[in-house]
Amino acid sequence: MSRDDHDALASYRDRFVGAESPLVYFDGNSLGRPLKVTGPRLAAFVEHEWGGRLIRGWDERWFHLPLTLGDELGGVALGAGSGTVAVGDSTTVLLYKLMRAAVAARPGRTEIVLDRDQFPTDRYVAAGVADECGLTLRWIEVDTTAGVTPEQVAAVVGPQTALVVVNHVAYRSAWLADVPAITAIAHDAGALVLWDLCHSAGVVPVELDAWDVDLAVGCTYKYLNGGPGSPAFLYVAERHLDELTQPIQGWMGAADPFLMGPTYTPADGIRRFLSGTPPILGMLALQDMLELVAEVGLPAIREKSVGLTSYALEVADELLGPLGVEVASPRDAAQRGGHVTLVHPRMKQVTATLWERDVIPDYRDPHGLRIGLSPLSTSYDEVRVGLEAVAEVLAHPR
Amino acid sequence: MSRDDHDALASYRDRFVGAESPLVYFDGNSLGRPLKVTGPRLAAFVEHEWGGRLIRGWDERWFHLPLTLGDELGGVALGAGSGTVAVGDSTTVLLYKLMRAAVAARPGRTEIVLDRDQFPTDRYVAAGVADECGLTLRWIEVDTTAGVTPEQVAAVVGPQTALVVVNHVAYRSAWLADVPAITAIAHDAGALVLWDLCHSAGVVPVELDAWDVDLAVGCTYKYLNGGPGSPAFLYVAERHLDELTQPIQGWMGAADPFLMGPTYTPADGIRRFLSGTPPILGMLALQDMLELVAEVGLPAIREKSVGLTSYALEVADELLGPLGVEVASPRDAAQRGGHVTLVHPRMKQVTATLWERDVIPDYRDPHGLRIGLSPLSTSYDEVRVGLEAVAEVLAHPR
Repeated sequence: MSRDDHDALASYRDRFVGAESPLVYFDGNSLGRPLKVTGPRLAAFVEHEWGGRLIRGWDERWFHLPLTLGDELGGVALGAGSGTVAVGDSTTVLLYKLMRAAVAARPGRTEIVLDRDQFPTDRYVAAGVADECGLTLRWIEVDTTAGVTPEQVAAVVGPQTALVVVNHVAYRSAWLADVPAITAIAHDAGALVLWDLCHSAGVVPVELDAWDVDLAVGCTYKYLNGGPGSPAFLYVAERHLDELTQPIQGWMGAADPFLMGPTYTPADGIRRFLSGTPPILGMLALQDMLELVAEVGLPAIREKSVGLTSYALEVADELLGPLGVEVASPRDAAQRGGHVTLVHPRMKQVTATLWERDVIPDYRDPHGLRIGLSPLSTSYDEVRVGLEAVAEVLAHPR
Repeated sequence: MSRDDHDALASYRDRFVGAESPLVYFDGNSLGRPLKVTGPRLAAFVEHEWGGRLIRGWDERWFHLPLTLGDELGGVALGAGSGTVAVGDSTTVLLYKLMRAAVAARPGRTEIVLDRDQFPTDRYVAAGVADECGLTLRWIEVDTTAGVTPEQVAAVVGPQTALVVVNHVAYRSAWLADVPAITAIAHDAGALVLWDLCHSAGVVPVELDAWDVDLAVGCTYKYLNGGPGSPAFLYVAERHLDELTQPIQGWMGAADPFLMGPTYTPADGIRRFLSGTPPILGMLALQDMLELVAEVGLPAIREKSVGLTSYALEVADELLGPLGVEVASPRDAAQRGGHVTLVHPRMKQVTATLWERDVIPDYRDPHGLRIGLSPLSTSYDEVRVGLEAVAEVLAHPR
C-alpha cells in the first residue's frame, strides 16, 4: 500500500496539469505546475474580460487587483492584514524599492547587513543600493550546517545598521531562519528588517504581522504557481505605510492616478509602493492558486510538505546514503523549508542525465541536487520513483 | 458604399475579439483589443509549454524571450537593430532605469529637460530621479497648438543639460514631435535624449537607429495589443550599450545569471538593462500582435491610421463642428499620431453617457474626448457610428 493512500490531500494532485504524466517533477520550488483551471481561465479572460470589457476593465477590477490580490495572498499565506500586501513588478524591482525605502528611513546609519548565502539577486540589489546611497554591506557569516541563526545576526548588527536582509528559507539548503527572533534583534539595534519569502510563500506558514516584520518580498511562481515570471509581492507593516516612500514614482502609486497632476504625491497606504501599470495577465494564475490554498489551508499544506520532505530523506538514506550521498538540509522538519538538497560530487552530471529521463530536479553549486516538493502537486510515489532514478544514475554512470 | 469597401486592410478587423460586436471602441490607444488567436494560444501555453516543459522552458525559450521579442519588435516597429531592444518591467520602471543610466553618463550636468505636457508618469519618475541625483527639472514650454517643437527644445537645452525626455506623440493632442531634429539639438548640447514611444509604437513608423536616438521606452498594451499591463520595452542605441549601466541590479541582468556569484557584473549588451525574472505570460499576446504587424507592415498600418483619423476629423467637422466642438489635434496628418482629440466644455459628461451606450472613447482633462483608432481593429463605419453618437449626446443632453 502506498503512502499516497493515507494522504488526505492526495486527490488535489489531479487538479494540476501533468498529473497523469509519468514525468517526475522535483522543481516545483522553481516553477510550480499550472492548475488545470488556469489555461481555460486565461482564454476566458482574453475573450470576455479583456476583449469584452476592454478599457472598462480597469475601473471594474484591474486597477484594484494588485491590492485585492495582495489582501488574498496576505490572508491565506502570509499572516498579513488587509492593506499591507501588494502584487506587481519582479522580486528584484521590489527588493530595490524596499531597500531604498528602508535606507531612507534610517538616515545616518551606514550599513546593510545580509547573509552571504542568500539568493544572488538580493545581494546584487543590496550592492547597488549601498553604492548609490554611500553605505557598506556587512555580511552575516552563515554556518551552512545551521542556516542563519539569531546569534550570527546579533554578532553583526548594531547602531550603524540601517537594514537587515535575510532569506526566510535558504535557497540551497532549505534551512529555515527564525523570523521573530532575528527581527527582534534587528529592532533592538534600531534597524529595519526585510525578509525574502521566495522559498517559503505558499509552503511554510508565515505570520508577518505577528512576527513584527517590517518589510518582505517574495515571488509567486514557485509554491504559488503563478506561472513563468508572474509578478512578485511586497509587504510593508501597517506602522510603516505612511512613513516610507519608494524611489520609482509612477502614476499607479500616485495619490490620484487619473488626476494627471503636475507633481507626484504618493498614495496613502500600500498603493504608494506601486509604480507602473500592473501586470494583470500575469496575476490570473496566482489568483487560481490562492483559491486552492484557501480551500486546503496552509497548515494542511505544510503538513503534507513536511511529510514529503521527511519521506524524501528517508528514501535518500535508504537508497542514496550507501552511494555516498549526503543530506545538506536540516533533519529536523521544524527547521526545514519545502525542499531538500542532496550532495554528491557528481550531482551536476547526474542532474543532466536525470533530465534526459524525465526526472526533473534542480542543481545548485556546489554539488547540490535540489528536490523541490510542491505539496499539492507531488505524490509520495513520485518521490520514491524519482529518488530510485537518482540511485540508478549514481550507481551506473554512463 | 462604405469606405470600408475600399480599405485593403478591412478584413484584418475580423482577426480581433469583438469584431462582430456592435460596440464602438475608440480606446485602442489605451488598451488594444485582443487577437482571436491569443486566448487559445495562452491556454495552449499553459497546457503544453508551462505545464509540459516546466522548468525546462527557461532554457529552451523563456530566458531569451525578452531579447528575441525585443528584436522582433525593434525590427517590425521601431527601426532598431538586433540587440538594442528588450521587453520587460513596466514603462515606469524602465523610465527610471534609463533616466538613472543617462544621468550617470553625464556627470556634472545639472538638469533634466522635459515637456510640461508629457504623460504624468514620465514627469513623476523624472522628479524622483532629479531629487535623488541632485538635479533640477527644466521645462520645455509647450505650445499646445503645435506640440513640442525643435525651437522650444533649443531654447532650454544647454551645457547644463544631462538628459532631454520627450513623448513622441503627445498623449492628449496627438501632436507628433520631430524626433531627429530634437535629438540633434540635444546632441549638439552634449545631452542624451530619451523618447517615450507609448503612443507611437505600432502605429507611427519609428526609426530609432536612423534618427540617432539614444534611449527610448514604450508600452505594448496600446497599439501593440499586449493586454492589460503587458510588459514595456526599452531601447538603448548600440553605441551606448557597454557604457551605460542601470541601478536595479538583478540576476537576469548579470553577466552569468546562473553563476550565482558573489558580486554583480553587468551582462554585455542590452541584457544588462533587465533586472528580475521576465514576465513570460504577459509577453505572449504581444508576440501574436508582432506577427500580425510583420504580416501587414507598418507603412500600411500607418496609412490606414491616417485614413481613419482624417475621416474622423471630416465627420467631426460635419457633425460636431456645428455643435461647438473644436479639434485639438493637428489637421496635417504628417504631424498627427494615431488618435484625435475633440474639445467641448461638456465632454466629461458626454463620455460617461457614451459609455452607457457602448460607445467607448476616453476622456482627458481639460474637456477632451479622445478617439483612439487602432488601425487593424477599427472600421470606417465604426468611426461614423461613434461620432454620430457623440453628436446625438451633445445635441440632446439628458
